[in-house]
Amino acid sequence: MPLQNRPHNHPMHSTLDPKRTVAELKELRTLTDDENGAQRVAFTPKWVRAREFLQKRFEGMPVETHWDAAGNFWATLRGESHRELLIGGHFDSVPNGGWLDGCLNTLAGVEVLRRINAQYNGQPPVTVRVVDWADEEGARFGKSLFGSSACSGNLDMDEARGLVDKDGIKLPDALKNVGIDFERVKDCGAELKNAAAYLELHIEQGPVLLDLDLPLGAVLGTFGVERHAITFHGQAAHSGSTPMNRRKDAFLAAAKMSPEIYRIAERSGVGVCTIGSCTTKPGIVTSVVEDCRIALDQRHLEADKLAAMHAEAREASERFAREGNVGVSWERLWHIAPAPFHPDLIDFCDEAVREVCGVSHRLPSGPLHDAAEVCMAGVPTVMMFTQSLHGISHNKIEDTKEEHLEMSVAALDKLADKTMAWIVARG
Amino acid sequence: MPLQNRPHNHPMHSTLDPKRTVAELKELRTLTDDENGAQRVAFTPKWVRAREFLQKRFEGMPVETHWDAAGNFWATLRGESHRELLIGGHFDSVPNGGWLDGCLNTLAGVEVLRRINAQYNGQPPVTVRVVDWADEEGARFGKSLFGSSACSGNLDMDEARGLVDKDGIKLPDALKNVGIDFERVKDCGAELKNAAAYLELHIEQGPVLLDLDLPLGAVLGTFGVERHAITFHGQAAHSGSTPMNRRKDAFLAAAKMSPEIYRIAERSGVGVCTIGSCTTKPGIVTSVVEDCRIALDQRHLEADKLAAMHAEAREASERFAREGNVGVSWERLWHIAPAPFHPDLIDFCDEAVREVCGVSHRLPSGPLHDAAEVCMAGVPTVMMFTQSLHGISHNKIEDTKEEHLEMSVAALDKLADKTMAWIVARG
Repeated sequence: MPLQNRPHNHPMHSTLDPKRTVAELKELRTLTDDENGAQRVAFTPKWVRAREFLQKRFEGMPVETHWDAAGNFWATLRGESHRELLIGGHFDSVPNGGWLDGCLNTLAGVEVLRRINAQYNGQPPVTVRVVDWADEEGARFGKSLFGSSACSGNLDMDEARGLVDKDGIKLPDALKNVGIDFERVKDCGAELKNAAAYLELHIEQGPVLLDLDLPLGAVLGTFGVERHAITFHGQAAHSGSTPMNRRKDAFLAAAKMSPEIYRIAERSGVGVCTIGSCTTKPGIVTSVVEDCRIALDQRHLEADKLAAMHAEAREASERFAREGNVGVSWERLWHIAPAPFHPDLIDFCDEAVREVCGVSHRLPSGPLHDAAEVCMAGVPTVMMFTQSLHGISHNKIEDTKEEHLEMSVAALDKLADKTMAWIVARG
Repeated sequence: MPLQNRPHNHPMHSTLDPKRTVAELKELRTLTDDENGAQRVAFTPKWVRAREFLQKRFEGMPVETHWDAAGNFWATLRGESHRELLIGGHFDSVPNGGWLDGCLNTLAGVEVLRRINAQYNGQPPVTVRVVDWADEEGARFGKSLFGSSACSGNLDMDEARGLVDKDGIKLPDALKNVGIDFERVKDCGAELKNAAAYLELHIEQGPVLLDLDLPLGAVLGTFGVERHAITFHGQAAHSGSTPMNRRKDAFLAAAKMSPEIYRIAERSGVGVCTIGSCTTKPGIVTSVVEDCRIALDQRHLEADKLAAMHAEAREASERFAREGNVGVSWERLWHIAPAPFHPDLIDFCDEAVREVCGVSHRLPSGPLHDAAEVCMAGVPTVMMFTQSLHGISHNKIEDTKEEHLEMSVAALDKLADKTMAWIVARG
């Protein structure tokens, strides 16, 4: 529904201007996109230009800004309490990315900070900070959540030290170019010492809200992920001369996994499972497949259910291997624990969405976000999703209706108000 | 069982010496193999050397030899009748091939010709010819049965004219180097004008006789082949944010084909179906598969059953596409009709095998052979298989027990006798 028809009145004292956020998003797009989409890859000149654009948003407000030890950008409006409300996002994009992924959050945070600053004449009840995380996407070095995982302490320094981009440049050297000392990046953890709550607005990047025809939703947490390569080992044999009952067909066993993961996901409730790749060796039409490797990604909001999904997939793979007289081996590619958000903040988010849109919806986040790192660092956290058109992102066709963008800024603002009151009440 | 214990006596008049064939196979191996296996790739210097070795086998016999217009080698022992018994094989191998694939047939034919020449003092009742087909394997230009398909008339001249090897050399130029005029290769069809029967002994290259613990078998014909690429077209979507019931998963539809082709093959009787390769796009673990391409090879001895297998696979693919809300398209890669062998000759082959081994077995040929081309040219044809150890070929570990090789030469000899009598009887 259009903003002007929303069922609850805008507070009279607010100077919140969601249309300004949309205008700023468009200005940023003009500054940093090309014909293929957003080009704000972290630690590149276009990203630095985007950061300068962000810096300018705070001019004229009593706001302190600085880069921390990992290159995260902080804007701080000091309040009566040193306890802090954080509103976070990321300006960096994938190459040829969408115009909203990451920067909606940051620019909406700017607008909320403006409203709070205006309402409280520069001194809100709690300190309010906008953070722009560095290299959320990991597009250049293949490691996402760089800045927020440095801040949470989860960053694996040994792994990160060895990361190289496609030109052979090491992450520590790329950081040096923008004035960051790799060996000190975890010092930024100190930024969270007074954090009382963390809010992050993001486009959904999926089809759930679109399907439900809802503008906004409250996010329950980010999925934990179990990611494995599964290889079935059979025997190459002539396609013409090998009777069917004599075959050790690695593809047959691997193929049976595909419908199986749909059953596993269904049993899990909200979990999802994906086989995203399949390779066959020798991979010629005149031979039964000797080796078949599939990559399996499993996600769930609850750690025990994620573990069960993983166990069920492993058991199924062993059963299919036995049935087909082939071998099977598993290799863990990656793992992250689920990050369930704070129940009070989920309730506030739900309320805020309902106040702006009339109806809300609770949903998990499949993709990872910086919010997962902040949540795992022990800061009460919640995210709000706004509908994605086409249910797609990481693509120049990524889009969201302008009226939904405006509603998302308004709802984030209400969520910020509720959360400030909650921080004050908790002392 | 060892040759000396076979249940029927060797004819007294025969000078057949199967051990000599084994010795000649070993000599050829020394001449043309390296540490990786046989290197008799057609139209290369080692293949020419192998041909010279073959030529020498006929010295001292009243046998005319020549290369035909396609580079096939013919050795002719003229008989009382101009009607001809042909015994064929191929000296060429794949790179790093086995020591028996192709040359067993040719050298066994030489031994049978020696026996016939000795028995009939140089003039048998019918003309007997040994043929060594050129480039059966198609290892260099990717097109098998070159010489025999030129002879049968089935060679597609336009396709063959454009074939290039991995060094960019065109087939016509490679042929020119060994004195063959590409544009005239089909002139060799005249070689078949008096052909009354064609016999071909070959290693099985599969596990059927090994499983049955039988040395030899009579071949019913070569399978027809339907070979297609099947591509399922879904939609890429984020592995984390896309609910299972919203996916258009191309891999799911393709995977369902794998168990299905086993059911289709089972319903067909002796047919076989193979999915030998699977490729996925974008092929990353964070995305549902958008496009999945599988290569399907289907083979059957009967044309109508082969057509039914193909129709069933197509119907299944369309059903799985509908179920998964994805598209599907088919592209024919290759097709050849089944070549059922001559019933009288199959009976003779069966008898000959039983006379030598005490027991026989009838089986189809999955792999293609030159015999298929001769059969399709209208010449009554049969093949005999000898057991392959490991059920494997096109590999340096390809092997057959020496006693089975000796039995195969003895059985081919008996089959030649029965066939000569049959040719005479048919006038």
